[in-house]
Amino acid sequence: MKSFGSDNHSGVHPDVLSAIQEANAGHQPAYGADAVTEKARQLFRQTFGSDAEVFFVFTGTAANTLAIRGLCRPFEAVVATSCAHLNEDECGAPEFISGNKILSFPPQNGKLNLECVDRLKINPGDPHRVVPRLVTLTQATELGTVYGLDELRALTERAHARGLLVHMDGARLANAAVHLGCELADVTTAVGIDALSFGGTKNGLLCAEALVFLKPQLAPNFAFIRKQSMQLASKMRYLSCQFIPYLEGQLWKRNARQANAMALYLRDRLTALPDCQIAYPTQANEVFAVLPPLLAKQMQEKARAYAWDGALHRFVCSFDTTQDDVDALF
Amino acid sequence: MKSFGSDNHSGVHPDVLSAIQEANAGHQPAYGADAVTEKARQLFRQTFGSDAEVFFVFTGTAANTLAIRGLCRPFEAVVATSCAHLNEDECGAPEFISGNKILSFPPQNGKLNLECVDRLKINPGDPHRVVPRLVTLTQATELGTVYGLDELRALTERAHARGLLVHMDGARLANAAVHLGCELADVTTAVGIDALSFGGTKNGLLCAEALVFLKPQLAPNFAFIRKQSMQLASKMRYLSCQFIPYLEGQLWKRNARQANAMALYLRDRLTALPDCQIAYPTQANEVFAVLPPLLAKQMQEKARAYAWDGALHRFVCSFDTTQDDVDALF
Amino acid sequence: MKSFGSDNHSGVHPDVLSAIQEANAGHQPAYGADAVTEKARQLFRQTFGSDAEVFFVFTGTAANTLAIRGLCRPFEAVVATSCAHLNEDECGAPEFISGNKILSFPPQNGKLNLECVDRLKINPGDPHRVVPRLVTLTQATELGTVYGLDELRALTERAHARGLLVHMDGARLANAAVHLGCELADVTTAVGIDALSFGGTKNGLLCAEALVFLKPQLAPNFAFIRKQSMQLASKMRYLSCQFIPYLEGQLWKRNARQANAMALYLRDRLTALPDCQIAYPTQANEVFAVLPPLLAKQMQEKARAYAWDGALHRFVCSFDTTQDDVDALF
Amino acid sequence: MKSFGSDNHSGVHPDVLSAIQEANAGHQPAYGADAVTEKARQLFRQTFGSDAEVFFVFTGTAANTLAIRGLCRPFEAVVATSCAHLNEDECGAPEFISGNKILSFPPQNGKLNLECVDRLKINPGDPHRVVPRLVTLTQATELGTVYGLDELRALTERAHARGLLVHMDGARLANAAVHLGCELADVTTAVGIDALSFGGTKNGLLCAEALVFLKPQLAPNFAFIRKQSMQLASKMRYLSCQFIPYLEGQLWKRNARQANAMALYLRDRLTALPDCQIAYPTQANEVFAVLPPLLAKQMQEKARAYAWDGALHRFVCSFDTTQDDVDALF
Repeated sequence: MKSFGSDNHSGVHPDVLSAIQEANAGHQPAYGADAVTEKARQLFRQTFGSDAEVFFVFTGTAANTLAIRGLCRPFEAVVATSCAHLNEDECGAPEFISGNKILSFPPQNGKLNLECVDRLKINPGDPHRVVPRLVTLTQATELGTVYGLDELRALTERAHARGLLVHMDGARLANAAVHLGCELADVTTAVGIDALSFGGTKNGLLCAEALVFLKPQLAPNFAFIRKQSMQLASKMRYLSCQFIPYLEGQLWKRNARQANAMALYLRDRLTALPDCQIAYPTQANEVFAVLPPLLAKQMQEKARAYAWDGALHRFVCSFDTTQDDVDALF
Repeated sequence: MKSFGSDNHSGVHPDVLSAIQEANAGHQPAYGADAVTEKARQLFRQTFGSDAEVFFVFTGTAANTLAIRGLCRPFEAVVATSCAHLNEDECGAPEFISGNKILSFPPQNGKLNLECVDRLKINPGDPHRVVPRLVTLTQATELGTVYGLDELRALTERAHARGLLVHMDGARLANAAVHLGCELADVTTAVGIDALSFGGTKNGLLCAEALVFLKPQLAPNFAFIRKQSMQLASKMRYLSCQFIPYLEGQLWKRNARQANAMALYLRDRLTALPDCQIAYPTQANEVFAVLPPLLAKQMQEKARAYAWDGALHRFVCSFDTTQDDVDALF
Repeated sequence: MKSFGSDNHSGVHPDVLSAIQEANAGHQPAYGADAVTEKARQLFRQTFGSDAEVFFVFTGTAANTLAIRGLCRPFEAVVATSCAHLNEDECGAPEFISGNKILSFPPQNGKLNLECVDRLKINPGDPHRVVPRLVTLTQATELGTVYGLDELRALTERAHARGLLVHMDGARLANAAVHLGCELADVTTAVGIDALSFGGTKNGLLCAEALVFLKPQLAPNFAFIRKQSMQLASKMRYLSCQFIPYLEGQLWKRNARQANAMALYLRDRLTALPDCQIAYPTQANEVFAVLPPLLAKQMQEKARAYAWDGALHRFVCSFDTTQDDVDALF
Repeated sequence: MKSFGSDNHSGVHPDVLSAIQEANAGHQPAYGADAVTEKARQLFRQTFGSDAEVFFVFTGTAANTLAIRGLCRPFEAVVATSCAHLNEDECGAPEFISGNKILSFPPQNGKLNLECVDRLKINPGDPHRVVPRLVTLTQATELGTVYGLDELRALTERAHARGLLVHMDGARLANAAVHLGCELADVTTAVGIDALSFGGTKNGLLCAEALVFLKPQLAPNFAFIRKQSMQLASKMRYLSCQFIPYLEGQLWKRNARQANAMALYLRDRLTALPDCQIAYPTQANEVFAVLPPLLAKQMQEKARAYAWDGALHRFVCSFDTTQDDVDALF
């Protein structure tokens, strides 16, 4: 039985294992000075634009936290929704590692409201207050919704106008791009994002994430920051090689397409149930539904449906979820 | 051509890739709640004793740094040789992550002198000085030498008598155990080590290291520390599974045996050269030799021999280094 | 013209200067090993109970931040109102110094709602979430209101029942105690407070604050924490001596009485104005009033009335504010 | 009986108390926006040059640690003698607060050897090693010796040539300048020092130290750093006012002159004793002598002579030490 508890319950896509096996050829320089990593770096530039500078790391928490460490000094603040993963689910890693305060705001359908950016108090001369510096947006959001390109453009424009940088937590960026029917650059570089946590693990990769700076000179010393933060892989090729099928082979799109399609199918099946109410638009690979107690219990047991908040439950589809898997829930 | 630059230039052992492929079966709970990780945990207890509590992490820097964070409060100090990896080669990660000061002492053949422990000033009532709390020993040392079991026993006894804990940086523990002809527990638990960074990556694993607390109650909240330090793998099974062939299949021993044997063979070949002088006893998989300029240049080009300090060069043998590889150097 | 901008605009009470002059007699041991400091320590025990252990520091930010560092591990969280000084006005010092996340809640009349404590999610086994550990209450609050003794008792009982400690930010504790007509221990030790930032600077002292642990064994290594946090005064007697008139001479009470009385007088005068609306109960030495634009401008110029939020203005009375000073505003 | 244990055993000079009393006039803006602080700032510019930007702090540990935090990123390293106060006597504050590693070298007569600067390995492209960034010199040194102006010039030139900044820990700068017969700027700004911890407390001030950046743009956001590091005094005037007699009234010179003269006198008296050996040149207000056990015991009891290391003892003279005080020792 497949799990709908999270997209990190699924395994690694066969293409990724093949890439790892292929990368396992003889001796190679360590720490990213190898040809495989160089090829992966080029693919990131082809994908996200020629200014893209990529750093591979092991976890999404690391990508998010080190984006903050790279872009903010400790007296600067991060602006996020209260439900952002880096605010709620990373055990205070940003506060601990980079010392930064997170200014959090209630989300609207999982998204950061434009007014939060507009209303930020920024008094660069007042040393009593942290200085807002970085807005972070989660795409797709923690609630399975997706920012539209216009929404993103508006947010980055307003943020930049106020002297803020914009980071995107793209743990599920592939799912968002598939929903929007666009390429990865369209939803990041083209709409003004400065730095990106580009997720792999939740979409079929093996503990591989990428922190991508999309504009030059944002974090000139980041190689030191990554090492000092314990995220420099010696055998880098085993991280970087995974992104070759992922980008070159468009695995990100194939995997996300399947997961998103299954989420829509699951949503439709849930909608058909009496007493079951879909809580948020299903725009990526997550379905949020308010379930009656009996069904909740059943869904938790059968499918590891995650009790998000009271009766509200989350179902996550993976790259390898099938219609049969969904049907088996009912 | 194989590299002798470092044992992280080599790849991943086929048994490890097989274990990864085997672990890649269907959906599994994340964050270590899976059966593969449970089996690996049991193997650690079988190997290191029933009190062993293991936490898998991605890098050796993380294992060392988080051992310190787990065992010391920020005003406590770490005692190390000046050549210890965590003092010299981890970009100040311990100081940055855990805030601890490292008190470093000149090594003798790579080892920490017993007198350094005896002479430590420990004034628990003087808040001006950091309080020594953790002695860290590297086994095998950075200079390719190996602490004998008696040496370790003496160090841990004296350290414990002074109220200090003892950590072992075992990035190359397998090589040391093979040299000593003993089992892993003999050189760790049995001689009084409190916490161990047990290396995998340098001996054929894929970015997999283990931090092992060998006595109960040493770091009761370490699960939080690992997560907040960005080292909690969601798809944990891909880390933990590697330790199944490594421990159960004795891969650690087979791999280290080959690397050590090749180091001895290389040493003998170097010894036979005129003007080439072996600098330290070859007890693990590293050979240190003082080379004349021309030979140095040649060895750097052919084999990535690493210029350690002036004319002193380091050669490292890997699990897959062969006699032919060594012969090809000459 | 006296300032109503803040109670740190006023100077130092003559009794305090006398105490400093008196302490300035010959040579004394440094770092608190002197007789003056010992006497001050005894006064704290007499005042707050025999378990009270006091550490003198230089700023309120230090007292609050080091209370957190002393009582919480970095993965534990602090519960506060969003308007708490340590959440809003200390430039992220707690996040930076101790690495702790602050979970903030909207205040009610400046106070933390009991329900915030009751509804806290505490999952001690889930390493993804910070673990709530310390509730902090500001007495008097940032909005010039005062928690009643029953309110405090209810909060500490509920907090303790959930395994939480309770810290009081008492930058204006004297004003609160005077309002309640009680002694300092009544509003702290007797109602279950665990640790106290006892303010002096805002009530006539010279850069002198005290962090007081009210129960044994709360922060056994705090002497190291204070030193490592740069708050150990070498010439300690000049800090500690100030608390002799403050406690023994009941200066805390005399000063706060005057400031509170003047706040009530000012409130009455403001109430009499048309278009001027008092925003919060005046229970300490602060008056919050919504002012029409012309009056606001006038009050800002004359008295440095502080524009708190839009039309809402804050007036703070000091220990040396007189009726004439208040009358001069009108 | 006066103490020779440390110059922080002495009290506050009467001129300083007078300045505090004078500053205690009515209400003043907080946080340094007052006229007294502005005057003190001007005096610093007159004393140290027009680029001097001063920040008042409470302790020498804070001045040193925040100089590092202001000038270095966490992956950069500080170069110091092993006996430097910030390396040995500040409970690891630099490592804890700023995360920086200190690279320490054995001193020569208390001084940093020029060769230490020349031989530093600086590999700006190697993320495994911290990058040396800041050389710190203690003037006068911890051993009572004084760098000559030529020595300082040579050190700053070589440091600057290698891309390093130079900080001076001037806890006893006044004593050094008096020894050299020069003005404060001669021994700091004129010889190329970039940032200065200018001590007051050890020379008759009341918990007042100054961190002075001597060149523009060195730490543009330092106001935030000071606040976030808990060192921003609300009633700033009571810190800053002390520097008015200290600089304008040349109190620094008068006090240091007396202390230095008494150290020479004490040295001469000790030299005359049989079996007593002066260990280092007496160039400031400290005398280091190797004492026979009986004399050592006697001197510890009578004068709090500090057992520095075995038989080596330290005597420190203060601004108010007299010939009679010295004579009373014998």
